[in-house]
Amino acid sequence: MVRKMRTSEEYRQDLYRLKPNVYVRGKKVGRDDPEVSGGINIISKTFDLVDDPYFKDLLTAKSHISGKRINRFTHIHQSAEDLMKKQEMTRKICRLVGGCIQRCMGCDAMNGLSIATFAADMEHGTDYHKRFLEYLKEFQERDMVAACAQTDVKGDRSKRPHQQDDPDMYVRVVEKRSDGIVVRGAKNCITMAAVADEIIVVPTRAMMPEDKDYCVAFAIPADADGVKIVARTSKVRAPKGLDMPQGEFGDDENMIIFDDVFVPWDRVFICGENRYATLAAYLFALFHRHSYTGCKPATTDIIMGFGALIAEYNGVYERHNIREKLVELAATAELVYAAGIASAVHGTKTPAGTFMPNEVYANIGRRHAGLNYYKELEILAELAGGLPAALPFAEDFLSSEVGPLIKKYIKRKSDVPPEDVYRCLYGISNILCSSLGGVQAVAGVHGGGSPVMEEIAIWRTYDFEKKKDIAKYLAGISKDMPKD
Amino acid sequence: MVRKMRTSEEYRQDLYRLKPNVYVRGKKVGRDDPEVSGGINIISKTFDLVDDPYFKDLLTAKSHISGKRINRFTHIHQSAEDLMKKQEMTRKICRLVGGCIQRCMGCDAMNGLSIATFAADMEHGTDYHKRFLEYLKEFQERDMVAACAQTDVKGDRSKRPHQQDDPDMYVRVVEKRSDGIVVRGAKNCITMAAVADEIIVVPTRAMMPEDKDYCVAFAIPADADGVKIVARTSKVRAPKGLDMPQGEFGDDENMIIFDDVFVPWDRVFICGENRYATLAAYLFALFHRHSYTGCKPATTDIIMGFGALIAEYNGVYERHNIREKLVELAATAELVYAAGIASAVHGTKTPAGTFMPNEVYANIGRRHAGLNYYKELEILAELAGGLPAALPFAEDFLSSEVGPLIKKYIKRKSDVPPEDVYRCLYGISNILCSSLGGVQAVAGVHGGGSPVMEEIAIWRTYDFEKKKDIAKYLAGISKDMPKD
Amino acid sequence: MVRKMRTSEEYRQDLYRLKPNVYVRGKKVGRDDPEVSGGINIISKTFDLVDDPYFKDLLTAKSHISGKRINRFTHIHQSAEDLMKKQEMTRKICRLVGGCIQRCMGCDAMNGLSIATFAADMEHGTDYHKRFLEYLKEFQERDMVAACAQTDVKGDRSKRPHQQDDPDMYVRVVEKRSDGIVVRGAKNCITMAAVADEIIVVPTRAMMPEDKDYCVAFAIPADADGVKIVARTSKVRAPKGLDMPQGEFGDDENMIIFDDVFVPWDRVFICGENRYATLAAYLFALFHRHSYTGCKPATTDIIMGFGALIAEYNGVYERHNIREKLVELAATAELVYAAGIASAVHGTKTPAGTFMPNEVYANIGRRHAGLNYYKELEILAELAGGLPAALPFAEDFLSSEVGPLIKKYIKRKSDVPPEDVYRCLYGISNILCSSLGGVQAVAGVHGGGSPVMEEIAIWRTYDFEKKKDIAKYLAGISKDMPKD
Amino acid sequence: MVRKMRTSEEYRQDLYRLKPNVYVRGKKVGRDDPEVSGGINIISKTFDLVDDPYFKDLLTAKSHISGKRINRFTHIHQSAEDLMKKQEMTRKICRLVGGCIQRCMGCDAMNGLSIATFAADMEHGTDYHKRFLEYLKEFQERDMVAACAQTDVKGDRSKRPHQQDDPDMYVRVVEKRSDGIVVRGAKNCITMAAVADEIIVVPTRAMMPEDKDYCVAFAIPADADGVKIVARTSKVRAPKGLDMPQGEFGDDENMIIFDDVFVPWDRVFICGENRYATLAAYLFALFHRHSYTGCKPATTDIIMGFGALIAEYNGVYERHNIREKLVELAATAELVYAAGIASAVHGTKTPAGTFMPNEVYANIGRRHAGLNYYKELEILAELAGGLPAALPFAEDFLSSEVGPLIKKYIKRKSDVPPEDVYRCLYGISNILCSSLGGVQAVAGVHGGGSPVMEEIAIWRTYDFEKKKDIAKYLAGISKDMPKD
Repeated sequence: MVRKMRTSEEYRQDLYRLKPNVYVRGKKVGRDDPEVSGGINIISKTFDLVDDPYFKDLLTAKSHISGKRINRFTHIHQSAEDLMKKQEMTRKICRLVGGCIQRCMGCDAMNGLSIATFAADMEHGTDYHKRFLEYLKEFQERDMVAACAQTDVKGDRSKRPHQQDDPDMYVRVVEKRSDGIVVRGAKNCITMAAVADEIIVVPTRAMMPEDKDYCVAFAIPADADGVKIVARTSKVRAPKGLDMPQGEFGDDENMIIFDDVFVPWDRVFICGENRYATLAAYLFALFHRHSYTGCKPATTDIIMGFGALIAEYNGVYERHNIREKLVELAATAELVYAAGIASAVHGTKTPAGTFMPNEVYANIGRRHAGLNYYKELEILAELAGGLPAALPFAEDFLSSEVGPLIKKYIKRKSDVPPEDVYRCLYGISNILCSSLGGVQAVAGVHGGGSPVMEEIAIWRTYDFEKKKDIAKYLAGISKDMPKD
Repeated sequence: MVRKMRTSEEYRQDLYRLKPNVYVRGKKVGRDDPEVSGGINIISKTFDLVDDPYFKDLLTAKSHISGKRINRFTHIHQSAEDLMKKQEMTRKICRLVGGCIQRCMGCDAMNGLSIATFAADMEHGTDYHKRFLEYLKEFQERDMVAACAQTDVKGDRSKRPHQQDDPDMYVRVVEKRSDGIVVRGAKNCITMAAVADEIIVVPTRAMMPEDKDYCVAFAIPADADGVKIVARTSKVRAPKGLDMPQGEFGDDENMIIFDDVFVPWDRVFICGENRYATLAAYLFALFHRHSYTGCKPATTDIIMGFGALIAEYNGVYERHNIREKLVELAATAELVYAAGIASAVHGTKTPAGTFMPNEVYANIGRRHAGLNYYKELEILAELAGGLPAALPFAEDFLSSEVGPLIKKYIKRKSDVPPEDVYRCLYGISNILCSSLGGVQAVAGVHGGGSPVMEEIAIWRTYDFEKKKDIAKYLAGISKDMPKD
Repeated sequence: MVRKMRTSEEYRQDLYRLKPNVYVRGKKVGRDDPEVSGGINIISKTFDLVDDPYFKDLLTAKSHISGKRINRFTHIHQSAEDLMKKQEMTRKICRLVGGCIQRCMGCDAMNGLSIATFAADMEHGTDYHKRFLEYLKEFQERDMVAACAQTDVKGDRSKRPHQQDDPDMYVRVVEKRSDGIVVRGAKNCITMAAVADEIIVVPTRAMMPEDKDYCVAFAIPADADGVKIVARTSKVRAPKGLDMPQGEFGDDENMIIFDDVFVPWDRVFICGENRYATLAAYLFALFHRHSYTGCKPATTDIIMGFGALIAEYNGVYERHNIREKLVELAATAELVYAAGIASAVHGTKTPAGTFMPNEVYANIGRRHAGLNYYKELEILAELAGGLPAALPFAEDFLSSEVGPLIKKYIKRKSDVPPEDVYRCLYGISNILCSSLGGVQAVAGVHGGGSPVMEEIAIWRTYDFEKKKDIAKYLAGISKDMPKD
Repeated sequence: MVRKMRTSEEYRQDLYRLKPNVYVRGKKVGRDDPEVSGGINIISKTFDLVDDPYFKDLLTAKSHISGKRINRFTHIHQSAEDLMKKQEMTRKICRLVGGCIQRCMGCDAMNGLSIATFAADMEHGTDYHKRFLEYLKEFQERDMVAACAQTDVKGDRSKRPHQQDDPDMYVRVVEKRSDGIVVRGAKNCITMAAVADEIIVVPTRAMMPEDKDYCVAFAIPADADGVKIVARTSKVRAPKGLDMPQGEFGDDENMIIFDDVFVPWDRVFICGENRYATLAAYLFALFHRHSYTGCKPATTDIIMGFGALIAEYNGVYERHNIREKLVELAATAELVYAAGIASAVHGTKTPAGTFMPNEVYANIGRRHAGLNYYKELEILAELAGGLPAALPFAEDFLSSEVGPLIKKYIKRKSDVPPEDVYRCLYGISNILCSSLGGVQAVAGVHGGGSPVMEEIAIWRTYDFEKKKDIAKYLAGISKDMPKD
């Protein structure tokens, strides 16, 4: 008998049962508030398609611990193929929600912790990995949706965690008890925390021994006592009266305040070991950057699709200057995607069993995406012309007084209905001229780590010494023939 | 006795008296509707500062027809110095309204028509220039604010005006009467038409003799019978409870429908002469592109200012990677501005007396601005980090429950109040993550003509043959020494 | 017993035995002329390292027809792994010769013909593939080095082959005889033809039925009667007295004139079938672009190595602005390389047995390389400063009069000998300020097809319709959920 | 009677009379050595055209000290118009020599010293300006050609002059005598020193009080005792048998070694005053960067000319993708030129009388040029295709055996002689694939200061605080309305 998997309706009802601790526009609300419905609609797609004949092989996997069929967003990747499937799933499902699928965060955090806890135990004899596996079991069984809270508020950027005037500028352990720990601090820029079942916390940077209290990773329910989620929500301009999938989606970016939150020991995965706190920070970023090699090509696919469609509607699709722009978009999408493939092909099977993406390729892929997002918007703006900024509101388009005139004057080629032209431009306007579009752009640069962060990661992991050896050999400074 | 100039309050009251013909969000409204207040607030600045000791020399000029002190936005430029003052005025006043000052449109249209009408009369013996001068007199006396309606809806882009299936795809004369003409059609992407006293119409492209009916330029009151203004309005997210000049401004982009509108002969400036219709189209674009060499540097100034300020607040202002980004912005601003200066220095005194900007420099300046707008946004996003996309709402920042926690956690260096950090990020969020910001970006690319339009203009006006002569000389293909 | 493979000395002696038909600097010379020694030195590396413990697995393969160990440059790729090994071999061996290894051309031509001949036979019942396999057998047995002559001189670029005033502007069959064909025409920009055993000719573009006479692919010895090779040779400035591997290498780019050349039937692989002539053209380009995903990263490795080394010598290696430049180079190299990997992973096993690279990824990889070559040179120039343009000659550096002074003044950090600084700068000067460096740059843009050619290839092979479907779905124009 | 000005023949003969102290390819030679003839041919143009009706107003000026007609390359600029004329002269004459006119160096050094000496005297009561004026008189009378030696060899880049292990890493005063000073050290990357009458030395960087001995500016004959000029010369591949102006020009970049050189007091312009040594360094750079706003557009003109010509010959001149590339080049040239104009318009009349260019505009102009040179080469490579790298040698083109075949196969459109096609490609090859072309590229980046140097200059002189004020005003952080 095939296991019945969690449905989006179950997910939604579970969320509605959480205690109201989301703060938005001056109010404290529950997850049934319309402000956060956009995110819920997005995440729902990850449940709705698990039995779709086309998507099921992508959206589900066989658990390496239970052998059961699970949602791939809860899977610990075991092979290069797993990584490639995750990447493909991410790309294909992101397209359906107009951008970020949001659920990768928890998956990436779990994969990172699977390695970091194992490694910590090897050195310290701790039992983090056992705790982690217990949690993973539940995570897969309950098909959980988790936010990963990494970015601390950081206070004075020139100081390390333990040097801050206010010690709470990075999330820290303020008390250790027999049954668990109490944590205080705040994380910001945390996507979809307002629509997650759980929040997984990992450190945000390399930690020194002096930063011991800040070396903490754990998981808690999203409505745990003391957790306050301050949400910045964004949507597109409601296309009143026009049915449009793109209009149903939205984003919540959150400041999560940990106002002395208790975490039981079985949910604590790192506590005090600075090297493994560092590793946990690093590995979440690594897995997350690999995920970006799936989602950013999807975003480019969407931009490319709208750009190609409006060019077709405008009757200029075959022109050279249109073609070169579309090819530029295709190249960006596929270079990023290729980097993800190479990252999988050159990945590593870790002692924990988890298959880890190659660092250089994951980072150059994410970096390339981050360096090109605004360029892609620019291309879309060039392809679309000025109308996305000047498009009449849907209420006017549908009105009986000016609606017919708008339809008359928005028409282009005779074989394209004015409403299709309008819808296409509306969709582009959502990308270029909405707060949500702006949020996606900022996330396109910074999400998962800004290009400057990938620059640092590449600088640290790429073997430039080997390159110098090539120069030395060619210039006759050294006789050693360079190999790798 | 110094002449009393029009005040912003007079302008506002005059607008309120116009017949309601603005369509927005499904309603027909007057200019007192809050939807269009953002534009009114912007234009008001051009009245409010005429007596300010610092701005008065920039914001006013001496009329070459009346000798009176007039608002420079109604002036016909007589010299290179006039053009440079207009450019400087534009830059400095745009900064105060967070971007486009919007009033340049009418000024640029009037300057263009001053030359085109004169030239048409020279060839055709018409009296357009006399009509124009009469209108100019009123324009200056009443200190009028005009939109310039140029961009037609264009229908099938592969066909010329007279070839369209629907003959109304470009604004055209449908009837000539003894007292005037009747026009039909629609213009779109017309900025600030909903807050203008008058609408000046010029053709949108080069016209052939067969396009005779489309060769028309004229001016009418914004509420003339048959005029329907369908407005797309954009604002920033209201910073409720926080006083912030940036929050007062807004934009309206309009489709203006001319539903058989009567224009008396004394307001008709071109009617049937295709070469001068073409010239009028071309000259508005030329003067407008020169205006962009003033306004776009202002936009960059604003982006640069916010970028530098957040870097300072973050304590990273002196870092190399910050510095290079700020210098990049400065270079963009000043190259565009320099192009405007060169355009004035190499401009031409026309037979009509109007001083015309140099075409190559106006176009390369506007093009450089258009090619860099999204790049500038990207730089601002890089400088600001992810918070502009994740900033808590003002209501939460000011709330008694989570407000103090947000203040605690948004704090950086000890000498900067959290509210200043918040305000700075809010301002950046307005630029990066609002519908208005998105509209400004699209306008940054397309307003006044997209880079591809400037490319065409440069291709037509730049003397590439002279450059070939250099190559021929150096390669020994020709003995003629190249000079110019 | 292990088969003894061809040695570089054998290759060299075989070349010397060819009839002199190389024209250079006004003389007709044999292959023992110093003008072409640079190319011979490069190709020799592909023989010298076949038994090197590190390189042997890369440089050799098992023939799928004979089962024997062969040089991988003569191998027909059978799997994705083969393609990845070819790519890796190319990258690693190119590094040792300061750039292009040159021998890939013949290999890529053979792989392309393996598919095109098979496909032609399927439709036309011809026996091209059998001829090809016979030739392949000899090719592998004799371990041959072949140039691939593709680019025709093309005459008037606006006309197809059969439309040209002079019918010889594309290589064509002027006579068919019982024993073979006679061809006439010329190919230009043919790298290393002056140092090849054989010349393989393939068409340069898509052919129409009317171009029948131009639909010809064949192989001939490089000194066949009627073949005239006009060589443009390039080297670096001879570092007299300084031993420097980089100084031993050089390039020959050739115009190959076929002055009525006889080709026996068993060396004719396509003759008249326009669709398969087109396919042969296309497939050589495809395999060759995949090769570029190996060689261009090697070129970047070299540039990166010299850039990093001079930065180290200058004591600025760790500076942020240096680091970002080196990371930029690393990113370029690895994105191109990743595209090659993805091209292999998503490649296709053809009915002929040959494993064909994925077209989109091969093209975006090659395109990315081509778009970045000059950028890479710019980065190297920035890293190196002005000295590569101003470096004293080796004779002066080594002279007893000014040599010691040059050494004194070129010194930087105390732990780096002046000669190492000099050598490093000399190597950079070879890249930036030599005719060979310039040739490599032009080849970096155009070799294997310019970015504009890849643009065309991507335009034709990328499924933009699928992207439009995404936009239609999101905007509600179509209900069909997009999948691929 | 019109004053007879120095002729190129006189200049040449004067050079030949200098003592041989040029070291090149292991020999010590005089200025009559063919190695340095390329530079002499270039400089000669500045003498040959002074009486040409077209050029005379540009190439000559009226001396502000003698009232006589002088070569503008010896003029001290007195007005914005002077600066614009110098810029125009530079652009127009550079075109005639295929690039850098080389003579600006001395002119820029003299202009810088005219201000620095005046300012030093104001503070220190020294008589440097008087000495300078005496020297200027001679400089103008004798119509001298001077190199400006600024860039020191610098040793360990992390140390200031006085901190170096070897104190000679920056040129310094080793002895002060009653009749003058003795200096030691070396300058490198000094263009055209081997073909100059005189060498003017200025410091290379900001100097601290501790660097007193390094605070020295002076002028000496190019063959003064102890001066050793180690020349790196570069030419294009000699087009034997083809008359081609481009083939006559060449470059010498020099390391000038001051091996205890005596300088009499009347040629010493700064000696010990660190702030004015700094100022002299800074001002030469400033005037020189302004000169680059003339010469770099000329270089772009040449590239543009060859690019347009080969496109015409190829019959693709009107294609969109060609047009956009040519417009890109035009835009680069004119933005840089516009920056020079703005720098003049916003320049300053200094107390010394010299008119000083505006710093921001001179720097953004030079920076823009420096950031685009390799991009321009890339465009030229794209326009020209692969042939510049593969063009047969002139000897083969002219040979009776293969020459006619080359002519047959290089032909394109019927109305363009093959020799013109060949010459055009030859000229492009000179730019793209010659050591001289490479030297010009490196100079295009670094000459007059690299983009990173202009970045520093802009960072120091641009008022970013004013920009922050704009942000503070708009965000409500400050009530002060920003003005400048």
